[in-house]
Amino acid sequence: MIVLAVDFGGSHISCAVVRDSEILFTEHLPVSSCGTLGAILPSIAKALRSATAKANLSLSQCEGVAVGFCGLVNPYLQTILATNGKYEDARDIDLASWAHDEFTLPLRLENDARMALLGERYAGAAQGFDDVVMFTLGTGIGGAAMINGRLLRGRHFQAGCLGGHFLARTGGRECTCGSIGCVESEASSWILPQLCREHPAYSSSPLAELKQVGFRELLQHEANGDRCAREVLEGCIQVWAGGIVSLIHAYDPEVVVVGGGVMNACDRILPTITDYIRKRAWTPWGQVLVRPATLGNAAGLIGAVPLLQESPNE
Amino acid sequence: MIVLAVDFGGSHISCAVVRDSEILFTEHLPVSSCGTLGAILPSIAKALRSATAKANLSLSQCEGVAVGFCGLVNPYLQTILATNGKYEDARDIDLASWAHDEFTLPLRLENDARMALLGERYAGAAQGFDDVVMFTLGTGIGGAAMINGRLLRGRHFQAGCLGGHFLARTGGRECTCGSIGCVESEASSWILPQLCREHPAYSSSPLAELKQVGFRELLQHEANGDRCAREVLEGCIQVWAGGIVSLIHAYDPEVVVVGGGVMNACDRILPTITDYIRKRAWTPWGQVLVRPATLGNAAGLIGAVPLLQESPNE
Repeated sequence: MIVLAVDFGGSHISCAVVRDSEILFTEHLPVSSCGTLGAILPSIAKALRSATAKANLSLSQCEGVAVGFCGLVNPYLQTILATNGKYEDARDIDLASWAHDEFTLPLRLENDARMALLGERYAGAAQGFDDVVMFTLGTGIGGAAMINGRLLRGRHFQAGCLGGHFLARTGGRECTCGSIGCVESEASSWILPQLCREHPAYSSSPLAELKQVGFRELLQHEANGDRCAREVLEGCIQVWAGGIVSLIHAYDPEVVVVGGGVMNACDRILPTITDYIRKRAWTPWGQVLVRPATLGNAAGLIGAVPLLQESPNE
Repeated sequence: MIVLAVDFGGSHISCAVVRDSEILFTEHLPVSSCGTLGAILPSIAKALRSATAKANLSLSQCEGVAVGFCGLVNPYLQTILATNGKYEDARDIDLASWAHDEFTLPLRLENDARMALLGERYAGAAQGFDDVVMFTLGTGIGGAAMINGRLLRGRHFQAGCLGGHFLARTGGRECTCGSIGCVESEASSWILPQLCREHPAYSSSPLAELKQVGFRELLQHEANGDRCAREVLEGCIQVWAGGIVSLIHAYDPEVVVVGGGVMNACDRILPTITDYIRKRAWTPWGQVLVRPATLGNAAGLIGAVPLLQESPNE
């Protein structure tokens, strides 16, 4: 199966032509912070045509267009429901008509985290499993859930996607979602500078001299023996591990796939998370597998194939 | 539809004959702490026969037996998977054969919280809704979830049932489930005496003179103006409300039904929980309804009718 795939990421939009589990060609478009979806659609169409041509294929060989969007979508009506501040015009745009007019192809639209889960199941860390939780440690914390081989969507298409907004600390920090004490507001990239500043050893830590502290810097200084970095990181790992236990208790998976940019330090992070889950998750049936994502940023693009193979009303 | 219903509660087993949404007759059996399921089955059969006779019905007018069990069950194979320390023999007992031999009737087995959700949807607070979360504040904290009109069960039949074991406080108190900082171990009846003892105003509170502190006593002393009682109660309400927001984020329901013994003080508790949810749950589609359960202990028995109406492999 050959398909066109579009993945709306935080810093760029990836436009690819995908055959089965292989990305034949990708073009990347930068994300402009004040851009509208309507303004960027012609560039996306051009990039998809270009990727198809570079792969020596014609549009008539493609079976559909799959779009992974960073927000809430209705995958049955192919509409965008909520955009978290980006692409404010997105709710008024008829992507299915766009795909038909541009390519004479059917379109499927899904949340980007659900697309990544589909990709990891099709060709990555969750191959062979029908019950999967995806947990993505990026700028924010995202995720998706699959039960019995079907993506969990829920009445308003929010189910499974809000694992970053499960409670981690009653009465805790304000989150961007409106809640308090979420996994994301207790331990993600955007709260990390504050976590460091509030640590008692911060003023004597080399972290205090940095302009910007991300998990990359935190991990470097932790490896160098800095106490502030070590304790902040360990605190974050506890939040993530506890959050994953909530996801296991919520969705009853066989395997949890952990992805996102922070997992570049997989070897430092995943063993502690796995130990916590072994000890703490209540799974009388046996042990949940905990695996690093293997497809990285390609997961959402590869998820285009299984999404287009899915029955539209599944 | 007339059915036989059995509900395994914490202190007694209810055996009833139910017609549609009406319980015609119930017999209660005490739960012996060291009893086996095998030893009590003859009494359950006798009680069901007695209830049927008192309702002036014959077994041939009944369409099946539904059993709500306080543990994890396989509702497709009709087997008990995990019992949380009660009825250790339950996993070896073939309840379907028992129901056939005793009554020549088919049997359905389900977790007790899922039965209660089915009952509240059939004839209680969740009537007319297909997307429901049940949250039960009893000795422990239980629950269940329904998505698109179908009970959420999951691969190992744990999904939806472990809302009391979602994270509420990273690094928090040890829970009976093996995890730490669960909603249940931060704010339920069994941890309540410890919460009170650790409060700075405990020694000068009338609570310190009580032999036993349950939520009933806590609410009485809170109403009398005791500061320790008020602050412990408010802390618990924050945990419950935050836990319910996690459940909303997990399962995307239209309505949350809050039940259990603590809800005898519904007027004191539910407005604060509802305010928290209004303010904190991320539901761009609109507002989740928050309703008190209306069927009390009868919910599980009334759930017998929709359970037997459900397609066995649904």
